[in-house]
Amino acid sequence: MDRLPCVLLSTTTDLRGLFGAALAAIADRVEILDHPAEDPERVRLALGWRPPADALQRYPNLAALCSIAAGVDNLLACPGRPPDLPVVRVVDPDQARAMSGFVLWHVIGHQRRFQAYAENQRDRVWRRLYPRDASAVPVGLLGYGKIGRRVAADLAALGFPVRAWSRTAQNPDPGVTHHHGPDGLAAMLGESEVLVNLLPLTPETRGILDARLLSRLRPGGYLIQVGRGEHLVEADLLACLESGHLAGAALDVFATEPLPPSHPFWDRPAIRITPHEACEASPQAVARTLLAAAEAVREGRVPPDTVDAARGY
Amino acid sequence: MDRLPCVLLSTTTDLRGLFGAALAAIADRVEILDHPAEDPERVRLALGWRPPADALQRYPNLAALCSIAAGVDNLLACPGRPPDLPVVRVVDPDQARAMSGFVLWHVIGHQRRFQAYAENQRDRVWRRLYPRDASAVPVGLLGYGKIGRRVAADLAALGFPVRAWSRTAQNPDPGVTHHHGPDGLAAMLGESEVLVNLLPLTPETRGILDARLLSRLRPGGYLIQVGRGEHLVEADLLACLESGHLAGAALDVFATEPLPPSHPFWDRPAIRITPHEACEASPQAVARTLLAAAEAVREGRVPPDTVDAARGY
Repeated sequence: MDRLPCVLLSTTTDLRGLFGAALAAIADRVEILDHPAEDPERVRLALGWRPPADALQRYPNLAALCSIAAGVDNLLACPGRPPDLPVVRVVDPDQARAMSGFVLWHVIGHQRRFQAYAENQRDRVWRRLYPRDASAVPVGLLGYGKIGRRVAADLAALGFPVRAWSRTAQNPDPGVTHHHGPDGLAAMLGESEVLVNLLPLTPETRGILDARLLSRLRPGGYLIQVGRGEHLVEADLLACLESGHLAGAALDVFATEPLPPSHPFWDRPAIRITPHEACEASPQAVARTLLAAAEAVREGRVPPDTVDAARGY
Repeated sequence: MDRLPCVLLSTTTDLRGLFGAALAAIADRVEILDHPAEDPERVRLALGWRPPADALQRYPNLAALCSIAAGVDNLLACPGRPPDLPVVRVVDPDQARAMSGFVLWHVIGHQRRFQAYAENQRDRVWRRLYPRDASAVPVGLLGYGKIGRRVAADLAALGFPVRAWSRTAQNPDPGVTHHHGPDGLAAMLGESEVLVNLLPLTPETRGILDARLLSRLRPGGYLIQVGRGEHLVEADLLACLESGHLAGAALDVFATEPLPPSHPFWDRPAIRITPHEACEASPQAVARTLLAAAEAVREGRVPPDTVDAARGY
């Protein structure tokens, strides 16, 4: 039987532990090897997450490097990555759905003032707050890829005015206004109260969530940060919360993960912290992606969902 | 100009303050009068919420009594209500959408364990909780009217398995399983982890949320109570939380409102209290309903959205 050898490459994650059961289901087509693998010339495929710095050089016949997630920034940053090695991300509708549920929870929580209710409950106070209708709480999305489209459509269906921004022009779904380019970014921010960051991490987007950008949101704004920690200038967020320009922030990703116990984010009541769990590709989706990449390699095609390495996503 | 006289009847709510602006928009067709109105024989219409006990007898030529909400239980219970007086409820798609957002927030919050994250944040603890996918958290709905249909469809779109129950057979929307009758109720409960109560209050549904019903939910269940306070046997809920059979409850309605400061619900960490604000019909929807009722009265028709008084909804 023709099984394509695939090596697991991670310095941080037990890939065999997390994905072994799902990968067993494709074992007739893909042979899973631990790093360092014997006969490195045999290895044609890698599944990686924060790979060892010297790993990619070791396998001269690699034909594709697959991520375990929608983000590939850590793979693109790997030293010694051959510039023409296809890097493949996971595109998973269930992951988009999970992200949408996560974002909806924070947007609705802000709109409906559930934190104020919790504070009133602590004081045994019955006080109606007359929360605004969804139509009065405009939401802006940074990023309008597969996940962004799902989030935008679900928010629009619940009545929130939705504007999405991406680098290049896109044809938006019904109920969504799309902006692009630098002018489009300013226009979108000025009309948004809640901002959801779904951007990929690239040299252009690193540090994009800074004082200049956040100050363009409507007063009393709310940030939902589900991109990458490196998108955010942390001191700028704290200053915007301090000044009251932002009412709050939900942070799922951080420049340093796990977030150190001494970090000032932990005890800000206006910040909600989750440990990078907004959404995850399922093991089945990872195995599906790997199998599709293996079949493409076998046939000499570029694997589906290969990113544009120069663009970064 | 032919304006139909309509009296405002409430012992608890400033109807003119809440709805005056919206009613002004229909002033060319409906004349709004305060109670007690002069020339009571002229009055053909009433807008009511917990009316004075003797109010309905005062107006012998009333042709319809309109609610300000989807619920009409307090109008049906009004002493001296002529049995054949049409009682009209508000059916408002925006209200259904608001209810859906409220319910989604609680269902997602339970699924995604946001309360556990908040506790971890208080302790500066970074711990991944691997929340379950929506597909592993079945939701049951008591009630499948206009509001229930919207809630069910939105939950199904986010991947939750949804079962809805009502008294009589219904044709459900895609993604929703419908049950009816006593056997259907038992079947639905046994398959549900989250239970959303959207029932109208009738003699049959009073006290329906009791130990017997709640104990049929899956262990670790969660109750979202957005019907009427009188649906719930409060001591039974506390016992189910105590035993751990229920993991939590979100309560928006109570037998006594405002909930008294001494009530044991306030300081249960597993209970989330909101002050009867899950959803409200907009003043515009109330005015629209009243106008439609006025036109029907003028033409000798039964107003749209007249309830079946014997059935209670």
